[in-house]
Amino acid sequence: MKLVECVPNFSEGKNKDIVDQIVNAIKVNEQVKVLDVEMDPDHNRSVVTFVSPIEYAIDAAYNGIKKASELIDMDKHKGAHPRFGAADVVPFVPIFDTTMKECVNLAWQLGERVGNELKIPVYLYDKAAKVEWRKNLADIRNESFQYEQLKVHIKEEKWKPDFGPSEVGKAGATIIGAREFLIAFNVNLNTNNIEIAKNIARSIREKTGSFKNVRALGFELKERNMVQVSMNILDYKKTPIYRVYEAIKLEAEKYGVSVVEAEIVGLVPLDALIEALKVYMRLVNFNSNQVFESKLLSVFI
Amino acid sequence: MKLVECVPNFSEGKNKDIVDQIVNAIKVNEQVKVLDVEMDPDHNRSVVTFVSPIEYAIDAAYNGIKKASELIDMDKHKGAHPRFGAADVVPFVPIFDTTMKECVNLAWQLGERVGNELKIPVYLYDKAAKVEWRKNLADIRNESFQYEQLKVHIKEEKWKPDFGPSEVGKAGATIIGAREFLIAFNVNLNTNNIEIAKNIARSIREKTGSFKNVRALGFELKERNMVQVSMNILDYKKTPIYRVYEAIKLEAEKYGVSVVEAEIVGLVPLDALIEALKVYMRLVNFNSNQVFESKLLSVFI
Repeated sequence: MKLVECVPNFSEGKNKDIVDQIVNAIKVNEQVKVLDVEMDPDHNRSVVTFVSPIEYAIDAAYNGIKKASELIDMDKHKGAHPRFGAADVVPFVPIFDTTMKECVNLAWQLGERVGNELKIPVYLYDKAAKVEWRKNLADIRNESFQYEQLKVHIKEEKWKPDFGPSEVGKAGATIIGAREFLIAFNVNLNTNNIEIAKNIARSIREKTGSFKNVRALGFELKERNMVQVSMNILDYKKTPIYRVYEAIKLEAEKYGVSVVEAEIVGLVPLDALIEALKVYMRLVNFNSNQVFESKLLSVFI
Repeated sequence: MKLVECVPNFSEGKNKDIVDQIVNAIKVNEQVKVLDVEMDPDHNRSVVTFVSPIEYAIDAAYNGIKKASELIDMDKHKGAHPRFGAADVVPFVPIFDTTMKECVNLAWQLGERVGNELKIPVYLYDKAAKVEWRKNLADIRNESFQYEQLKVHIKEEKWKPDFGPSEVGKAGATIIGAREFLIAFNVNLNTNNIEIAKNIARSIREKTGSFKNVRALGFELKERNMVQVSMNILDYKKTPIYRVYEAIKLEAEKYGVSVVEAEIVGLVPLDALIEALKVYMRLVNFNSNQVFESKLLSVFI
């Protein structure tokens, strides 16, 4: 079965009733499975993770966006995280037999429908971008350019949406795209010197010239008397987690410190783990279908 | 849902029609999922792997054993692998929420039913053994003690079955038990010196005083000009694969050779892979439910 993952972000993280209504709208039939709903009251934002057969994915996402546009008023929304609209970012992620190209097509079809039927401006990002500078989400929507700024600038040529009107209503704009599975990965070091974590972050991230598809920052873990290199790995197929981990281990040696532990926050695809074992244990002729749980999944879905 | 895996071995590996009939008998309802059927014509033996909700597991295994006893005549059976009966070995394996204790109970209930209703002598082995010396399968049935020898000796006190008559019909005897998930693991070395593989095998296996739950032999891979340490890891929870792999790597250094590659033959449980990454990448606070495929499985089953 061709399945696709979709991880829409909505600008409501406090009112459970509203989030429940959005989630229920997404469940267009029982083959659409909601894996996770994370409400973040500080950011006033929720992240829904669902998996759907490819043929229902657009309907499910569309219904969620529609419901959010009815229930969330961006003129009243406040929250720490940058945001553009009621349904803020809606990425499709290829899983199993689905290709990135199919996810790009889903994003385009969904974008067209949201623009035409809901009259919401739609910007296409990442692998689904049609305008070169919109590939990077942070270039579209960031701390200094959000819903309020878009309202002012949307008539400018630069901000012409990919679909929908050049006009911002109370539902704001929606950023729709297709991307690889994102891995949130942290590595903790046995020092409380924040400069070391920041230097290592700089030495491994794309922004400062190192690994592509890696965002990294250094943080203090005060209560543990440690520092952390905190990362998003945006394309683990091209920049595998083991390579990033080993690079951090090596850089740490420069400062005479060492890695205490690594953590994966949230979900990780099985093949990201297998790729690591291919290096550490020289595993050959091995694929995810040899993992019992994965084999069983293929029988059940 | 409480699921159990069962891996019955049948003494027919050439006639597909017979194997199909046995497999169909196992599928007592659509919740019983056959994951794999491996017919081995040289050994004249088939290995069926199925997964079942715990409440149907006995029926499914019983029906397979019954069908095999009707279709296979051990007086006519020939094959390289040691064998006791038409249904030769039937182990239950705990997966997901199922415990080893529950699998032992399944083995006992199945054994009683096979003994009483089918009049087949049943020997309980591994974790389900009631007689101490029957814990090890190879102590029950091996190259020098098979169907033919059992026929002669079954009246002796030592060979009194755990269930069923002290009499061997054309269906032979069945060995029923409960065991951990078995991992078949090979490590290849960059030498053609078979003595090195044999020495390393001796240095890591239980039989010659090393890792418990590990069986190992040295083989030549002539066409590749390499040797192989070929292993069965019988309890990966107590003797993890990474520990065995690293031991082989270390021993190889003694001979100035190195590991070319490792392979896992057949299925491996996800947590065996995760345990390895906990060592190689110091992964903490991580469990199998964070692996996308495993999370998805929990939603589908």
